[in-house]
Amino acid sequence: MTNILILGGGGMIGQKLAGRIIEHDIFPGANLVLFDRAFPPAGVPVKTVTGDVADPAMVRTLAAGRPDVIFALAAVVSGQAEAEFALGWDVNMMAMWHLLNALKAEHEASGGTYCPRLVFTSSIAVFGGPYPDKIGDEFLSAPQTSYGAQKAACELMVTDFSRKGFIDGLSLRLPTICVRPGKANAAASSFFSGIIREPLNGIEAVLPVADTVRHWHASPRAAAGFLTHAAGLDTNLLQGRRALNLPGFSCTVAEQIEALRRVAGQKVVDLIKPVPDQTIMGMVNGWPRDFAPDRAIALGFTAESSFDEIISVYLEDDLSL
Amino acid sequence: MTNILILGGGGMIGQKLAGRIIEHDIFPGANLVLFDRAFPPAGVPVKTVTGDVADPAMVRTLAAGRPDVIFALAAVVSGQAEAEFALGWDVNMMAMWHLLNALKAEHEASGGTYCPRLVFTSSIAVFGGPYPDKIGDEFLSAPQTSYGAQKAACELMVTDFSRKGFIDGLSLRLPTICVRPGKANAAASSFFSGIIREPLNGIEAVLPVADTVRHWHASPRAAAGFLTHAAGLDTNLLQGRRALNLPGFSCTVAEQIEALRRVAGQKVVDLIKPVPDQTIMGMVNGWPRDFAPDRAIALGFTAESSFDEIISVYLEDDLSL
Repeated sequence: MTNILILGGGGMIGQKLAGRIIEHDIFPGANLVLFDRAFPPAGVPVKTVTGDVADPAMVRTLAAGRPDVIFALAAVVSGQAEAEFALGWDVNMMAMWHLLNALKAEHEASGGTYCPRLVFTSSIAVFGGPYPDKIGDEFLSAPQTSYGAQKAACELMVTDFSRKGFIDGLSLRLPTICVRPGKANAAASSFFSGIIREPLNGIEAVLPVADTVRHWHASPRAAAGFLTHAAGLDTNLLQGRRALNLPGFSCTVAEQIEALRRVAGQKVVDLIKPVPDQTIMGMVNGWPRDFAPDRAIALGFTAESSFDEIISVYLEDDLSL
Repeated sequence: MTNILILGGGGMIGQKLAGRIIEHDIFPGANLVLFDRAFPPAGVPVKTVTGDVADPAMVRTLAAGRPDVIFALAAVVSGQAEAEFALGWDVNMMAMWHLLNALKAEHEASGGTYCPRLVFTSSIAVFGGPYPDKIGDEFLSAPQTSYGAQKAACELMVTDFSRKGFIDGLSLRLPTICVRPGKANAAASSFFSGIIREPLNGIEAVLPVADTVRHWHASPRAAAGFLTHAAGLDTNLLQGRRALNLPGFSCTVAEQIEALRRVAGQKVVDLIKPVPDQTIMGMVNGWPRDFAPDRAIALGFTAESSFDEIISVYLEDDLSL
């Protein structure tokens, strides 16, 4: 029987992924386990294990179950990693270090037969400016946030442990996921969802940056699709470059708002209140704006092709009205 | 008084650096300390401390001395890091993690006044093929060796700890240093020096790769110059991108051998014996061949402009005849 483990399974993307795996029966007959510090009360009804992904003993216990596929989603988000430096490195990098070493130990204990697929959610935060108009697949990782540096360091480890055959891993540099359902989180990018989600729910939303800010988005549904596609990918096709820029849709905040106006009307748009925040503007100014993710597209990864479509996914999958 | 600490001060580059600092009086009146697991018997006559750079307690003791400038050269070389996976990650990455955290603790204990310059010797091994004809300053780090992955992970940490103001660091991606004096080491690149050094000393040398292999070289003297230049550099000029591709000279093994023939004659060249080694060929095939290091050149870093010049530096500085 196939064992599937989602680290960070209680988070928004972890829940979307679990839901997609069950709904589409992606791993027929598989045993699916979600691991996280906490789970939503009305979460996806599968087996859960509660614990801290940064606890090496806990990670060794999880590895000892020899999951065939591991989705490594658990992370401290960008804003928190910036505010709590030690915590960010501990959870976002050292936890991966302990996980990879625990999996390597299982690989060795199995006589080399155990070699799990590991799908790691990296981020476009591994990039730092100045940027070309579109970031290509050979653009350098020069992150300007702790979160981005931690994700980039994990990519290097995932690739090297894979190259040596201890695991079979790859890293997905997720676009900013939008529209996130539920409450705002501590990610500095949270407002990209907030300015769509809150107005659609009749609530005021704060816009902390200028509406000329351009950014790179994909929906939660697309994110879950990236992850399940990666779980089944022939990693030989990656030719040793196991970190991928994923497809998404590039638009300005003004274009996001125009799409919202088309979908929901002016009264909804009027709920967006500009309240400039220098800290968030400083972080966002260093973020990527547009990509040419040719490799991932050739490998069959797909995302939305308009912001209207991204809003529609939210309306279909998540609107709580 | 300025305190200067060289981690890996017993190694070839550490010794060249210490010699240069003393000879050119680079840090007038400074207290220079070399740290390493061992030192050459007739090494540069300065204070030495013996220990393991991968021992966190030892690293904390070194940091407690609050060195103003730290040269972080200590490493397991590429061939050994490939053969001894755990050791490579421990010495080449975790040691840097412990060092940076020890320096951050000193920064905080000082009320933020202590912020040392850290010059880290990274490597062109952070790159992996396929390559453009010349690697530019925005080309991705996609290492295909453990050594390269470890160096790239350290670069990310050095940059992020610097961005937060705990240290003021930069990473120098050294070309392959050639002609290394003394004995061959366990680096897979060791033969690039061996085929020049051994014949000049009347000894046979093994050439494990085809003479069409093109690679990127700078002399030990240039390496010491990179390091002292970096110690005095205004890091604001780096604009957050604190890992630099350095200048060097690109040539094929055949061109190296031609230069040797011009300098020392056919009888010396006849001491080079081709003995193909698949393991070394496999590693070398993944290495960079040529660079356009525009940023480092603009920042005043300099290297040799011919392989004849590189051989001349060996003859002037090191020939043991």
